[in-house]
Amino acid sequence: MTGKDFSPTLASQLCFALYSASRAVARAYGPILEPLGLTFPQYLAMLALWEVPDAVTVSDLGKSLRLDSGTLTPLLKRLEAAGFLTRERDAVDQRRVFIRVTDAGMALRAEAWNVQDMIIGCYATDLETLGAVKQQLQSIVAMMDERQASTT
Amino acid sequence: MTGKDFSPTLASQLCFALYSASRAVARAYGPILEPLGLTFPQYLAMLALWEVPDAVTVSDLGKSLRLDSGTLTPLLKRLEAAGFLTRERDAVDQRRVFIRVTDAGMALRAEAWNVQDMIIGCYATDLETLGAVKQQLQSIVAMMDERQASTT
Repeated sequence: MTGKDFSPTLASQLCFALYSASRAVARAYGPILEPLGLTFPQYLAMLALWEVPDAVTVSDLGKSLRLDSGTLTPLLKRLEAAGFLTRERDAVDQRRVFIRVTDAGMALRAEAWNVQDMIIGCYATDLETLGAVKQQLQSIVAMMDERQASTT
Repeated sequence: MTGKDFSPTLASQLCFALYSASRAVARAYGPILEPLGLTFPQYLAMLALWEVPDAVTVSDLGKSLRLDSGTLTPLLKRLEAAGFLTRERDAVDQRRVFIRVTDAGMALRAEAWNVQDMIIGCYATDLETLGAVKQQLQSIVAMMDERQASTT
């Protein structure tokens, strides 16, 4: 095969379909999350925190969100400044930082109850299709993780 | 329905599946694109440009890539600095900027012929499944576009 045989188009690429779908969804969340004072990645972090609001380490939260601490820390600092969580370094092991959701952060959860319904309206696709796509994406990510783990 | 009924989990969200799949794929491209001197969004831009290398406007390129010019312009400036394209403002209509791929940019296309094969190895999923996911994502994006167009 020579270079001349290379002819993938933008439209033929799964990576571009993912990139553009992910951006379209983040954009659709924008106006829905604005009244809550959250960006899309901040909303994902709050979703994760609402499941374990009492004390999760930044490291464990990063695993749930698949974000490294370099990306996660500034995001958490902004959520702390907004009063939705506290960050506290472990007195024993200084490398560990515990995140706790504040009362304001828990109150936000109640305000967010209709985000789900609103975004499903934006997708304009039936729930069964959305569920199938979600499962396929999760399985692709899981297989990529496995592949990566076996080669490093 | 009260706030207490709100209980979507991070794992239950299509938006998170998309977000994490998109990030996982961009990360998988990193080491594959590094020898070419391209980041993942720059690679997408070059894919689009290789299809119409002679003279595309920034505006039309933005439509193909679904990027606004605020995001696209810095990316194109970096590709220009790397010698892969030229940016030239239209003498007649100063708002239009034409992009042309240079010889070095076209040579890069030949170097990129195996990117496709390498990334498919990373997905670790059969091509049929990948194609089906791609089509579903494209159809979700198209329907979101339509919905957005009809409400604005």
